[in-house]
Amino acid sequence: MRVSRRGEVDPFIVMDVMEAARRAEAAGRDIVHMEVGQPGTPAPAGARAALAAAMEREALGYTVGLGLPALRARIARLYGDWYDVDLNPERVIVTPGSSGAFILAFTSLFDTGARVGIGAPGYPSYRQILSALDLTPVMLECAPENRLQPVPGDLPGDLDGLMVASPANPSGTMLDKPALAALIEACAGQGAAFISDEIYHGIEYDKKAVTALEISDETYVINSFSKYFSMTGWRVGWMVVPEDHVRRIERLAQNLFICASHAAQVVALAAMDCTDELEANMAVYRENRRLMLDGLPKAGFTKIAPPDGAFYVYADVSDLTEDSRAFAAEILQEAGVAVTPGLDFDPGRGAGTLRFSYAQSSEAIAEGLARLERFMTARRG
Amino acid sequence: MRVSRRGEVDPFIVMDVMEAARRAEAAGRDIVHMEVGQPGTPAPAGARAALAAAMEREALGYTVGLGLPALRARIARLYGDWYDVDLNPERVIVTPGSSGAFILAFTSLFDTGARVGIGAPGYPSYRQILSALDLTPVMLECAPENRLQPVPGDLPGDLDGLMVASPANPSGTMLDKPALAALIEACAGQGAAFISDEIYHGIEYDKKAVTALEISDETYVINSFSKYFSMTGWRVGWMVVPEDHVRRIERLAQNLFICASHAAQVVALAAMDCTDELEANMAVYRENRRLMLDGLPKAGFTKIAPPDGAFYVYADVSDLTEDSRAFAAEILQEAGVAVTPGLDFDPGRGAGTLRFSYAQSSEAIAEGLARLERFMTARRG
Repeated sequence: MRVSRRGEVDPFIVMDVMEAARRAEAAGRDIVHMEVGQPGTPAPAGARAALAAAMEREALGYTVGLGLPALRARIARLYGDWYDVDLNPERVIVTPGSSGAFILAFTSLFDTGARVGIGAPGYPSYRQILSALDLTPVMLECAPENRLQPVPGDLPGDLDGLMVASPANPSGTMLDKPALAALIEACAGQGAAFISDEIYHGIEYDKKAVTALEISDETYVINSFSKYFSMTGWRVGWMVVPEDHVRRIERLAQNLFICASHAAQVVALAAMDCTDELEANMAVYRENRRLMLDGLPKAGFTKIAPPDGAFYVYADVSDLTEDSRAFAAEILQEAGVAVTPGLDFDPGRGAGTLRFSYAQSSEAIAEGLARLERFMTARRG
Repeated sequence: MRVSRRGEVDPFIVMDVMEAARRAEAAGRDIVHMEVGQPGTPAPAGARAALAAAMEREALGYTVGLGLPALRARIARLYGDWYDVDLNPERVIVTPGSSGAFILAFTSLFDTGARVGIGAPGYPSYRQILSALDLTPVMLECAPENRLQPVPGDLPGDLDGLMVASPANPSGTMLDKPALAALIEACAGQGAAFISDEIYHGIEYDKKAVTALEISDETYVINSFSKYFSMTGWRVGWMVVPEDHVRRIERLAQNLFICASHAAQVVALAAMDCTDELEANMAVYRENRRLMLDGLPKAGFTKIAPPDGAFYVYADVSDLTEDSRAFAAEILQEAGVAVTPGLDFDPGRGAGTLRFSYAQSSEAIAEGLARLERFMTARRG
């Protein structure tokens, strides 16, 4: 049976790690999971209770394509609370996760062959989704001195769009307001659409993340309930677009998705008021980050930058290996800790990097760091 | 800000009807909803209880990209129960509704510009999703004497793919095994991929629907928990593909969606064992169909074919109007019944057709039919 070229997307290399970890656990080994990119916590209790009640009360059929009006209004209010931005709820579109928002944004903005810049290292699905839509991902190798974020000088000048993430996955670094504004301005100057992935907003440590909406209304802003709101598996996110793009996105969303999960929208709306539980999660991430920034250098992973947000540490291990994939396999085998080789995030330089996630419990993180230290001590001989 | 050509999809004309109905209700009028394409019932009680329990027990994070193994196995078992087909669970992919399955199928099979045949009348999002992916929908006007289903003679000979639905929306007609086999053979003969939309399977009246898997393993089969399992708003469906296509679909699904809603997968798995409640829903559809086939001709809608499945009656009203959109507006205004003009389903001939849905309660259907009869009697003067 025929197949397409656009359907030939790369496999995730981390999947090999996850499968190896699964096999090790099935064989009775205890594995610490520093490879997973999601909270270990469920949706907030109050949010789950809201769904349990709604399931007894409503049929939970399709919602309108743009999402429940109450949820869109509540999301708009978040922009007031978090950033002091006055946002028209009409500009908020509820999506099936940030994944659905990427598909909508790329489809709304770009035609076949369009060149869309994405920073390396970065979330691997950006380039795979672009390829699947027959768009052209343009990898921008970001410099360590720019904390692995793109700067205007990295742009080749002929882009149709640019996608940035702050805080970023895998680095956890943020773009401050002048840096973000410079990129938005550079894009406007060459007619390139600007898309800001803000999925890790809310999970930030020393200073607050800046939304692109503080700078310009002429951007697409993508966010999700997966990370700060601890709802990965529910698949619900949102996007904010310019006012004159709402109707086209509505038509695309109706046809491509019909709507985001009604149940997930009910959970999301209630989750936004579960501040105590969400802030308790944040206290765990904060403690985990402290453990990581203390423990990783002690273990011998010294080339790391303190992450501004998210729950990852990205380490340069090029002095320890030329093959991060084999190194990750060795760490899993010898230390019983699953970590992610950098190749998924940066095909060019990722053979010399690892990503450590600290989204799990502090006990697990402490145990993982102890194992890493013993392993590295033994490895040095 | 720039926009794409591919993002210029047509609006749903039914949305105008739904908005007008909403305004009428907001103004205090009572409206019977024969425009909606979804059950009025919630997910089965046992399925909702399963989720309530799971929410207390599990974090419900991401599932693997292909879906919960237990759900894939249970779906495979359905093919034994319903069709006596022995299906390898590895070939089953859980998707975010049939919508997600369409996106995966089209992306896996077709490159930019590929010509994909779809029958008119048919589900409007087929052609909109194809356009959004820069593929070329080829509308095949199906003949009334073929009960508005395509036949091999309708195929232009240069197709890259063909999508059929049985039972179909809006007509409710089915392809029997010889008719389905003839189409599959015609596609194989010209190297066109065959995609079978089986979303209305289970909702059938005089005889069972035939799955393409009874005829060939070299097809993509798409189904959903939305209709028979009464779970529209949960957004979970599935797709069965040839064994050697599973890995490419897995990679696409991981990147495009990560996974279908974990909660929805839990509900779906339990729903598959809620036979009593689902069959009680079927008894309502059966009674509603009887009411419709009796009441519509009495009201003056005589050019209808008894639907084999689904919960729609598609009526030729070309002797009553040349503008089904205006006629639907008149019916809403005068009779207080919302119906769907055929233009969404058949841009060419839909100005002379209406779709009546009978997915709601029998009381509502009886009331709607009484209103239609009074309206049509008055209209004849």
